[in-house]
Amino acid sequence: MTKKLEFNKFFTYFVKGVTKLKYQKIPEATIRRLSRYSRCLEEMEQTGEEVVSSAQLAGRCMVNAAQVRKDLAYFGEFGIRGVGYYVKDLHNDIKKILGSNKEWRMAVVGIGNLGSALLSYKDFLKQNYKIVAAFDIDPQKVIGRVSEKLGKPVEVLHISRMKEVAKERKIEIGVITTPPSEAQGVTDLLVEAEVRGILNFAPTQIIVPEGFVAKDVFFTTILDNLAYLLSNN
Amino acid sequence: MTKKLEFNKFFTYFVKGVTKLKYQKIPEATIRRLSRYSRCLEEMEQTGEEVVSSAQLAGRCMVNAAQVRKDLAYFGEFGIRGVGYYVKDLHNDIKKILGSNKEWRMAVVGIGNLGSALLSYKDFLKQNYKIVAAFDIDPQKVIGRVSEKLGKPVEVLHISRMKEVAKERKIEIGVITTPPSEAQGVTDLLVEAEVRGILNFAPTQIIVPEGFVAKDVFFTTILDNLAYLLSNN
Repeated sequence: MTKKLEFNKFFTYFVKGVTKLKYQKIPEATIRRLSRYSRCLEEMEQTGEEVVSSAQLAGRCMVNAAQVRKDLAYFGEFGIRGVGYYVKDLHNDIKKILGSNKEWRMAVVGIGNLGSALLSYKDFLKQNYKIVAAFDIDPQKVIGRVSEKLGKPVEVLHISRMKEVAKERKIEIGVITTPPSEAQGVTDLLVEAEVRGILNFAPTQIIVPEGFVAKDVFFTTILDNLAYLLSNN
Repeated sequence: MTKKLEFNKFFTYFVKGVTKLKYQKIPEATIRRLSRYSRCLEEMEQTGEEVVSSAQLAGRCMVNAAQVRKDLAYFGEFGIRGVGYYVKDLHNDIKKILGSNKEWRMAVVGIGNLGSALLSYKDFLKQNYKIVAAFDIDPQKVIGRVSEKLGKPVEVLHISRMKEVAKERKIEIGVITTPPSEAQGVTDLLVEAEVRGILNFAPTQIIVPEGFVAKDVFFTTILDNLAYLLSNN
């Protein structure tokens, strides 16, 4: 069996670094790769694979094997020397690390093209992300517009009902897909409704108070990254 | 004046690392932050600010000042000790590093909700990313459907015209917003059309041959990152 995660160690959130700093936060890139490993392990589980070596997992996820071992080493010891990892156990352990072993209840705010795209994003269903509410400010969108693609339809509600509905439906993550001019206002509403996690797709930086977590997703940032690689490859 | 970028040094793409490795690739997180600095510097330029300290830039971009200095140090020396950086010069230098000082011509493939959202994503206009073509396989979408939001309308073309149009319009980046089942097929078409950079929004990993650059954008990966922060904050 995979050695169980050492939760105390993990909850400290800091590890011995290899740089000049004695202690270092877990790199964001490691977290992103863990998410990738999780996706690959899920596919392996579905096709009935039971054991995987770090080289095989790396090949599947298109990273190198040393990277896989280094990423996992931040969180304890996994797998058995000379054998590899048990697919199911490693998958569960990574989900525990990522916090994706529980269901996350989300609301999408701003039901334009991008909001609608997220309402019908099938991959959320496979993972533990559940859209339980959709909000807009436009009365025409509010009346009767529903997403029927993801199992149970999600009704679009007026944004004024945010606080009440967030409490009722236990919403933990708010996804902002409004125009940039509305993003901070919506953020403030989400904060007031005690929605602790915010994913912002509007191309403007949002600010949240302490105790809340916000992530901006700028498509231009992603393109800058690609442009950099194209310019230097 | 800001010291000019040392291009030779930069084009080698490797720098002395602070870890055990003597040479190290530029971290992806650094590239992402450069993109963020670029965005902040652009705002500063617009409001007429001429000089900025690393602390001010850091505050504006919500990172710490040491991080700003460390990120910039990968690429040479910028700014003047005790003064700070000249906003315009630093902005230009960062754009050169990122390769965003030139116009990148893009095609969006798959004009559903997400594709339409990207066609009207106003932030692309501010940066040097220009959508010059849109493709779909559905004849109903192809006939007459245009995005009028971004200046000149973009006509939706049938995907069979990819190779011809890519050459004609000098397309360098293809953005995939099809269902996952179509993503690799579209990738192969883009590769055949010699579109060197691919940004894939379909929730499946795509494979490109050597000489091409592909980036997957999985919304679940972004959510995993947020879930991790929420679980450990």
